Amino acid sequence: MSTNRIPLAALEQGVPFADRHIGPRPADLDAMLAAVGVASLDELADRAVPDTIHDGPPGSSSAAPSTLPPAASETEVLAELRALAARNTVTVPMIGLGYSGTITPPVIRRHVLENPAWYTAYTPYQPEISQGRLEALLTFQTAVADLTGLPVAGASLLDEATAAAEAMTLLRRAGKSPSNRFVVDADTLPQTIDVLRTRAEPLGIELVIDDGLPDGEFFGALLSYPGASGLVRDPSALIAEAHERGALVAVAADLLALTLLTPPGELGADAVVGTTQRFGVPMAFGGPHAAFLSVGQKLARQLPGRLVGMSRDADGNPALRLALQTREQHIRREKATSNICTAQVLLAVVAACYAVYHGPDGLRTIARRTHRMTAVLAAGLRAGGVEPVHDAFFDTVTARVPGRADAIATAAHDAGIALRRVDVDTLAVACSELTTRAHLETVWAAFGVTGSVDELDAATDDALPAGLARTSEYLTHPVFHEHRSETSLMRWLRRLADADLALDRTMIPLGSCTMKLNATAEMEPITWPGFADLHPFAPAADAEGSLELIADLERWLAELTGYAAVSLQPNAGSQGEFAGLLAIAAYHRSRGDDHRDVCLIPASAHGTNAASAVMAGMRVVVVATAPTGDVDLDDLHAKIAEHREALAALMITYPSTHGVYEAQVREVCDAVHEAGGQVYVDGANLNALVGVARPGAFGGDVSHLNLHKTFCIPHGGGGPGVGPVAVAEHLAPFLPGRGVVGPVSAAPHGSPGVLPISWAYVRLMGLDGLRRATLTAVAAANYVAVRLGEHYPVLYAGADGQVAHECILDLRGITKDTGVTVDDVAKRLADHGLHAPTMSFPVAGTLMVEPTESEDLAEIDRFVDAMISIKGEIDRVAAGEWPVDDNPLRGAPHTAACIADKWDHPYPRELAAYPTGVTPGVHDRKVWPPVRRIDGAHGDRNLVCSCPPVEAYS
Amino acid sequence: MSTNRIPLAALEQGVPFADRHIGPRPADLDAMLAAVGVASLDELADRAVPDTIHDGPPGSSSAAPSTLPPAASETEVLAELRALAARNTVTVPMIGLGYSGTITPPVIRRHVLENPAWYTAYTPYQPEISQGRLEALLTFQTAVADLTGLPVAGASLLDEATAAAEAMTLLRRAGKSPSNRFVVDADTLPQTIDVLRTRAEPLGIELVIDDGLPDGEFFGALLSYPGASGLVRDPSALIAEAHERGALVAVAADLLALTLLTPPGELGADAVVGTTQRFGVPMAFGGPHAAFLSVGQKLARQLPGRLVGMSRDADGNPALRLALQTREQHIRREKATSNICTAQVLLAVVAACYAVYHGPDGLRTIARRTHRMTAVLAAGLRAGGVEPVHDAFFDTVTARVPGRADAIATAAHDAGIALRRVDVDTLAVACSELTTRAHLETVWAAFGVTGSVDELDAATDDALPAGLARTSEYLTHPVFHEHRSETSLMRWLRRLADADLALDRTMIPLGSCTMKLNATAEMEPITWPGFADLHPFAPAADAEGSLELIADLERWLAELTGYAAVSLQPNAGSQGEFAGLLAIAAYHRSRGDDHRDVCLIPASAHGTNAASAVMAGMRVVVVATAPTGDVDLDDLHAKIAEHREALAALMITYPSTHGVYEAQVREVCDAVHEAGGQVYVDGANLNALVGVARPGAFGGDVSHLNLHKTFCIPHGGGGPGVGPVAVAEHLAPFLPGRGVVGPVSAAPHGSPGVLPISWAYVRLMGLDGLRRATLTAVAAANYVAVRLGEHYPVLYAGADGQVAHECILDLRGITKDTGVTVDDVAKRLADHGLHAPTMSFPVAGTLMVEPTESEDLAEIDRFVDAMISIKGEIDRVAAGEWPVDDNPLRGAPHTAACIADKWDHPYPRELAAYPTGVTPGVHDRKVWPPVRRIDGAHGDRNLVCSCPPVEAYS
Repeated sequence: MSTNRIPLAALEQGVPFADRHIGPRPADLDAMLAAVGVASLDELADRAVPDTIHDGPPGSSSAAPSTLPPAASETEVLAELRALAARNTVTVPMIGLGYSGTITPPVIRRHVLENPAWYTAYTPYQPEISQGRLEALLTFQTAVADLTGLPVAGASLLDEATAAAEAMTLLRRAGKSPSNRFVVDADTLPQTIDVLRTRAEPLGIELVIDDGLPDGEFFGALLSYPGASGLVRDPSALIAEAHERGALVAVAADLLALTLLTPPGELGADAVVGTTQRFGVPMAFGGPHAAFLSVGQKLARQLPGRLVGMSRDADGNPALRLALQTREQHIRREKATSNICTAQVLLAVVAACYAVYHGPDGLRTIARRTHRMTAVLAAGLRAGGVEPVHDAFFDTVTARVPGRADAIATAAHDAGIALRRVDVDTLAVACSELTTRAHLETVWAAFGVTGSVDELDAATDDALPAGLARTSEYLTHPVFHEHRSETSLMRWLRRLADADLALDRTMIPLGSCTMKLNATAEMEPITWPGFADLHPFAPAADAEGSLELIADLERWLAELTGYAAVSLQPNAGSQGEFAGLLAIAAYHRSRGDDHRDVCLIPASAHGTNAASAVMAGMRVVVVATAPTGDVDLDDLHAKIAEHREALAALMITYPSTHGVYEAQVREVCDAVHEAGGQVYVDGANLNALVGVARPGAFGGDVSHLNLHKTFCIPHGGGGPGVGPVAVAEHLAPFLPGRGVVGPVSAAPHGSPGVLPISWAYVRLMGLDGLRRATLTAVAAANYVAVRLGEHYPVLYAGADGQVAHECILDLRGITKDTGVTVDDVAKRLADHGLHAPTMSFPVAGTLMVEPTESEDLAEIDRFVDAMISIKGEIDRVAAGEWPVDDNPLRGAPHTAACIADKWDHPYPRELAAYPTGVTPGVHDRKVWPPVRRIDGAHGDRNLVCSCPPVEAYS
Repeated sequence: MSTNRIPLAALEQGVPFADRHIGPRPADLDAMLAAVGVASLDELADRAVPDTIHDGPPGSSSAAPSTLPPAASETEVLAELRALAARNTVTVPMIGLGYSGTITPPVIRRHVLENPAWYTAYTPYQPEISQGRLEALLTFQTAVADLTGLPVAGASLLDEATAAAEAMTLLRRAGKSPSNRFVVDADTLPQTIDVLRTRAEPLGIELVIDDGLPDGEFFGALLSYPGASGLVRDPSALIAEAHERGALVAVAADLLALTLLTPPGELGADAVVGTTQRFGVPMAFGGPHAAFLSVGQKLARQLPGRLVGMSRDADGNPALRLALQTREQHIRREKATSNICTAQVLLAVVAACYAVYHGPDGLRTIARRTHRMTAVLAAGLRAGGVEPVHDAFFDTVTARVPGRADAIATAAHDAGIALRRVDVDTLAVACSELTTRAHLETVWAAFGVTGSVDELDAATDDALPAGLARTSEYLTHPVFHEHRSETSLMRWLRRLADADLALDRTMIPLGSCTMKLNATAEMEPITWPGFADLHPFAPAADAEGSLELIADLERWLAELTGYAAVSLQPNAGSQGEFAGLLAIAAYHRSRGDDHRDVCLIPASAHGTNAASAVMAGMRVVVVATAPTGDVDLDDLHAKIAEHREALAALMITYPSTHGVYEAQVREVCDAVHEAGGQVYVDGANLNALVGVARPGAFGGDVSHLNLHKTFCIPHGGGGPGVGPVAVAEHLAPFLPGRGVVGPVSAAPHGSPGVLPISWAYVRLMGLDGLRRATLTAVAAANYVAVRLGEHYPVLYAGADGQVAHECILDLRGITKDTGVTVDDVAKRLADHGLHAPTMSFPVAGTLMVEPTESEDLAEIDRFVDAMISIKGEIDRVAAGEWPVDDNPLRGAPHTAACIADKWDHPYPRELAAYPTGVTPGVHDRKVWPPVRRIDGAHGDRNLVCSCPPVEAYS
């Protein structure tokens, strides 16, 4: 018998998931470390990470003992998640309240929600390689604009409640009224009212909840159409009156109802908001879903969030890109009027696909069916002696059942249907695409009535107000008519996906955005019915599994960040920031320090920081950056001294937005604390800290994280994001929605639908794996800095000459000397089949590169070699070989069409098509951009934000 | 209130799935019918389908009442399938018998098994647009060749048992022994022995089951390594003796064990067979899985099934294609030595990915872990007084437990583990990648023993024979080392998929292959654990859900074909044919008609018919084809008269392989019956019959169907297929594996893993939907025939001038006049981003087009327009504008690289790249072939069938 026995303990673990998540193999990592000049990850940690913040390796004396479970295998984690999903009880959802049962067509589930070509894509800041999702978003915008009757709709907002809040502030700045009062229809979704309160208060807006319009001045109003009770009222009289009184009006509307009802835009509304959840997006216990906001042309440039528009490329062909970017928060900083950054692109794409697949006729049929079920339901109740409260409704019946609400809700629940208990005397029942005759009979039985569906159907009219019957057409564009078979929809989705470059084809080395692997095992659970089909207001007993998952993740994140408590409610980083600042403000107020309203923000901060501070009612004071890229300590002390009494907070990103571990961070924190301020550590760069250092341990009082950066939620082409807020013990009472501070998102837990991803990631990696990932990411960034440093100056480094998890390549000198810009380099990378790094942030004229831990050495080298090849091309421009306005860089990206066309450039077409390192054939990675360089300014001058006539493409 | 009430009954059905499956919208269908000259589908049915076979519309007097359930929605069908899956009990599989627990890495599940780019691809007969799956298959061949130690491995066979049968016949024809005896190791998997018996008998091969080698002559032997009992014996002495005695030897081996054991190729074996199931392929209650067969160079040209080999393209670049196609059954007809047609490509790709993802070290660790668990398990039993039967084993322990086997198996089952009950005194326990310490303890407890895993581990040596420790390297090619991170594997899979054209990008109008939609709702269930993780020999009580699904489907298919009984066991069409012919032969034998052995086959038949007949022990007599394309009735009557006494069967394809409903089919059947013969109706073209006519009703005694053609199982790039055999009442006792005729596949139910697809299709469509699909397919074929008829002669039509579901475009005149060949047209279609139709079958020099019902009018028109554009190019060649050897047709397909390169052709590069109708930009469908036209002959002369050194690509 063979004697080379290997003990079972050495064999039975299999390949740790961390070895699949982390790209470089051990030998490759050694080579990378050698290039960087260190012998091991631990030495790198010692060198790169300042002692002042260092936690030491897990288990070492300097680290707190971990309560994280040890790493588990994919098989184990999927089994655990299956068990959690099984502990949720999925009922037939008739709760309503803005969340409806819907059928996600399987073809959309598989080809979008479960397709990395869609879910791993980045925000379309490089539009030439993002035409597919830009087209899907244009389709979304067109559907919203058509259905709401207002011509300009954005590319999605976070949820209906925050969209309503954005509408409120939009109306305030767009209108002429000096009033600070905002009227909210009393029949508005309660969670929308709650979020409006949270958002209004720091801005000094007074909310007036009213059935009509109150006496006195007000700058705007939000009407509900239909209302939370189900009632459909004609809002036109109130809109006219409001307009007469100098106010603007937004209408919260149900998109499906608008296939049958006159759209608010035709009734005079200035803005329309709502959710597209019931367009095929799973309820997912609250989110993520894509909300919408549409406005008239006059308000287009005021629209918060992203807006896709049409422009043209260098060859004059139509091409899409994000329009009017100057409105956006990261540009406008403390002058921003919204901090919205992430959108809900993946879900907006699903909703757009749903509209495309069903088309106007299909949507109308779904709406009619939903309404008919509701009408019959109400008739049955009425026939049984239960009086519905309203005669006009779309999909929701509110019924008075004095003293019986709980008993009826329980009876329905026992029969598998969840109703909405409004109060002890009142129930509401909402129908949806899912409602069947059997459901009606079950509901009737719970109410103690019986009825014949067919008889009632024949005897009952529709319950939509006749005067509001929709007469205008919608979804007339061919895209809503061409893809009615599954085959056609599948091919349309493939064609769009092929126009984009996502993580499934290239690294996306985006500084500060951490585009790492979104592992399949992490992604699979999110479309399981046990997680996907839970209503956000399901009874807690029905959501045991999800609630445990949320509690686990909050606990794990608290440990990893060194804080006492975490809230997963914020459904984007921006919302986490806002919640964190609200917590600080509320804390000061709770101590009588109402006057503390100054927020110090370093000049290098992401613009969202300032925008959030303004939204939280703070005054932004900018702290200078030293030539090293660090916070200028002298200026910091000066600013603290100047604002000592008013100091509320300092916001600091760590590692800095320059990609450096600032050694002085404790000193900075101490100075703020000493002056009575709170320290907000922006967690955007947490991928350089997890398992290595904890912001809550080195001076932070509050942080937000980005689960879509550090914890593997995919970027989805520009959302969903999740931005948990983590706080120290003294701030825990001020987390959003826990009594003192109101909620910041519509659903109690924000976007629980994607939390299994981060849960699985932590569970699969364990603390050791997370630490190894962090240090590998740091090693990769330093390797890139070393290899590219000979070719492009690297801006900023830490004390030991190391960068953190990203590095900034400074092209300003090159641009000055040669005219070649960061744009030229970014677009030429597309010719290499590579996605560009972050452009001109945080420093204009630079590229910020974050390779992450998931990229293997071959891919990092492919990027580095491409950058070196590009430098060679720059040198030829510098040498005068090619003119600055006609060379492979300025000509980039090159489409196949331009290669096949006649050629009159001073550089050869072979070089244009196949730059050094890109070889043709089955083994190449040549991906042809579908359009050439896009002229953004042209599109902003000629704003087209919905699907143009087909001729525009010809 | 609005009064335009629409009754609920008109609204509640939603969009029938049939409207998603069927491509043309009503208005489009009307336009197609108008072009064909009929007013409705019913009129088309009347005109195209001969009265002699017509069933009439469902529910009409001429049709039998249906027992098919009415069409259900996707939501309902998925719920029903979930309920069926929940009725299966998935236990820890320790049964062994050739099926092992394995972990499908989630990244492979999602990116291959659940990815239409892989599963909807066709067999790579157009290699220029199939380089991705050809490369994956080359990787499969390389892994098998390396691990088995024999240099030439095919691109997969159907299952281990049929692979063993193929090896048996290969050895017979390759060897020099005149003997008809074949020795089979008594320790061979019982299902393999059963299938060998089924296959040996009609060929006159005598099986000798023996522990060693018997006295007397034999032409070959099959040894097992390890054996079914788990025993590992050194086969070299037996191999040497067999060779000395003039026989050849095949070894059935476990691929995972071969990472540790000296491979059979190094021990002298002439062939090695086995399954790759445990390389990440779900057990799926028996299949589909990819089996393998490897041989030495000398036997390469004898290998049955498909073989991928390297060649070069028109630019001299390396390119892959199917090698040595002249060996294949469809070429060699009655001279074929195997009827194997379909492979198991999708599963072979999964197995190849598993090898790539784990690499040699990873596989070795999995094998070591599996073995160590087994060694410790055995030690624990031994320590507890239960004596394992063998000292040398890999993963299976057979233990004597006199009288206690049932009690122990029950105890283990109660604890969630399934063991193999060998007999009342004997149990076997098989370990796998899934086995954990806890499983060992549970098994021990069931045996009534206890043990400490750690102590036993430390005290126990490996149980592999020391002399058989593997010393040779394997999987040394870089592909097995480069993709160890999930990101890297995902990108490799995407890159390969992008090199291929599958249904997710283009119609695949393959005559006789019916490439229709494989709907997501049909595909989703196949990877659910309830279906995927069931062992084929699990107790029936554990498989209730799957058994009900199988029974439903057999019943539904029997009704749809007009037969009395159906067996789903055959796991490919070829196996269904073989089973059908065996049934006929057994029927004749049962009546004392042993002498009936003549099988009449029309000249136009698919070659597989003849090959199957030979395998079933019949003599093939060819019946001529009349100029109309129909069977030549005079010749038929003459042949019947000539062979009247010996007449066993007629095989006829209906509609004919010429795509025509032959009006005389009843007359043909009657003539055969009158002479005492049986009628075999080949169901390859059943897509023209379902819901319209039933072969069992118009004269067939037996048919096989192709679930991968008519019933939506995707082609998977060349498999899996399922080929049920359907028989009339009098043949039901002779279905395979039901007593009289032996089994034709390894697992009792063949490939149940993909049966949910067909079940869902029937359930979603209902009889009405199926009939509508059939007639829409017929309408589409007639529309293509009408539109293209002006440009290319259409060969053959039925009495009313109609074709059935496909049409043949005759290019022979064009080729004669211009030199432009069907190849030129097919390759030029690739420049249009279209897949070519079937080339030169059933008539050389023609193209056979089957659009199917799933293609919408826009896609059909795209194809037709491309064909017309090609005809325009042909005309320019004919006019002498371009030479026949240098024009866009002969130059096709054009790669992006050749477009970007220097250009010295008489036609412009724009035209090469963008033929008429292909427009650049985000809306185009331009797909660049990765290689130019491939020189197949060069590759056959220089056979390279495993991954070449990387330099070969440079």
